[in-house]
Amino acid sequence: MGDVYARIRELGCELPESPPAGGVYRPVKQVGDLLYVSGQGATVQGVPAIVGKLGADCTLEQGQAAARLCALNALATLHRYLGDLNRIRSVVKTLGFIQSAPGFNRQPEVLNGCSIFLRDLLGDAGVGARSAIGVNELPGNIACEVEFIIEIHPWGRD
Amino acid sequence: MGDVYARIRELGCELPESPPAGGVYRPVKQVGDLLYVSGQGATVQGVPAIVGKLGADCTLEQGQAAARLCALNALATLHRYLGDLNRIRSVVKTLGFIQSAPGFNRQPEVLNGCSIFLRDLLGDAGVGARSAIGVNELPGNIACEVEFIIEIHPWGRD
Amino acid sequence: MGDVYARIRELGCELPESPPAGGVYRPVKQVGDLLYVSGQGATVQGVPAIVGKLGADCTLEQGQAAARLCALNALATLHRYLGDLNRIRSVVKTLGFIQSAPGFNRQPEVLNGCSIFLRDLLGDAGVGARSAIGVNELPGNIACEVEFIIEIHPWGRD
Repeated sequence: MGDVYARIRELGCELPESPPAGGVYRPVKQVGDLLYVSGQGATVQGVPAIVGKLGADCTLEQGQAAARLCALNALATLHRYLGDLNRIRSVVKTLGFIQSAPGFNRQPEVLNGCSIFLRDLLGDAGVGARSAIGVNELPGNIACEVEFIIEIHPWGRD
Repeated sequence: MGDVYARIRELGCELPESPPAGGVYRPVKQVGDLLYVSGQGATVQGVPAIVGKLGADCTLEQGQAAARLCALNALATLHRYLGDLNRIRSVVKTLGFIQSAPGFNRQPEVLNGCSIFLRDLLGDAGVGARSAIGVNELPGNIACEVEFIIEIHPWGRD
Repeated sequence: MGDVYARIRELGCELPESPPAGGVYRPVKQVGDLLYVSGQGATVQGVPAIVGKLGADCTLEQGQAAARLCALNALATLHRYLGDLNRIRSVVKTLGFIQSAPGFNRQPEVLNGCSIFLRDLLGDAGVGARSAIGVNELPGNIACEVEFIIEIHPWGRD
């Protein structure tokens, strides 16, 4: 897929600053070649950026933008941890929670905002297993939160 | 436990068609001998089949049937991926989300519909770690959604 | 960090009895050096102990006590499984669900009750990746439920 940083720019995006931890946890915990990435929210520099509930306060498009923002924050977090995003081998799993008003049942379409971005960025390697879940409340009233398991190459690709 | 396909029939069930992906994700992502299975819903051929909230629209028995249907869809998904369900070595973990009306707090009993089926099918190997969680909304208004981590034998059992 | 059992006492806590399974699952499932710990609730001997919703029935402090109780129950469960808590190498990941009334959005602060305890107990090794999620209902009306992935030393430390 070529250089990940160049691809991010080609997709019209910019790698944000990595979000500060919002509690007592590591942004990334490594076990072997797997990276467990803590739940990423629709925040900018840790401040809730896309807030509200799908089906009441947010449009589907806003929800998808929120999900993409979670992916970008994950990448920023991984960049800080790895030093080089080209070390990502694949997305193993994403678990996405969508803050949902009563009767909103289109969580998979919302989470596609994250998944399509990662597929566009990393190709087939960016498509992993996934669950999309609706919940009533999320931290800071963010529209969605996504956690990831990422597989890395044991060495850099060069 | 003998042949898994024969056991499914002995338990009075039929392996359904594997559900189509409801978004941009892989039904199964493999890392080593672990298979991450995407969230499986109470659907038939991808169409919501058991819908509504426990404690309001669904009886406990309907919820348990929904949870069993999630397990059957997972097996169908694994059959498609593996070619042979006898390659399953154990169920590592299930994470089940139960669509719950206010005041419904019997999520573990609902999820037992999935867990008892897998135990009956695979014996001790079918019993893994588990969490049962209530949520307000799920995709397509399904009564429950369950994701799995499955361990496989590196080779077929013959 | 010294002996884990001594540290638990130094922190003013007591290892509870390991909670009985509340359904058809294993308290712990091991794959290699990873232990998947089933969802632990704010229970004592399996009976809901800290119940209600954050933002309505429970104060923040009660929620944090509930989260710490989940950690203690996880330790009791691990003690029963491992025989020796000093075999814990690190906390890989915690996924915490906080039973939340409408408008409650401080889930990370609640889950810190669990995370700070594990950090105080195990030092840096006690801090893993984490997600904090709000949900509308949990089993037995408990205030929170937390599942864990724990890494162990392949042998006891002696």
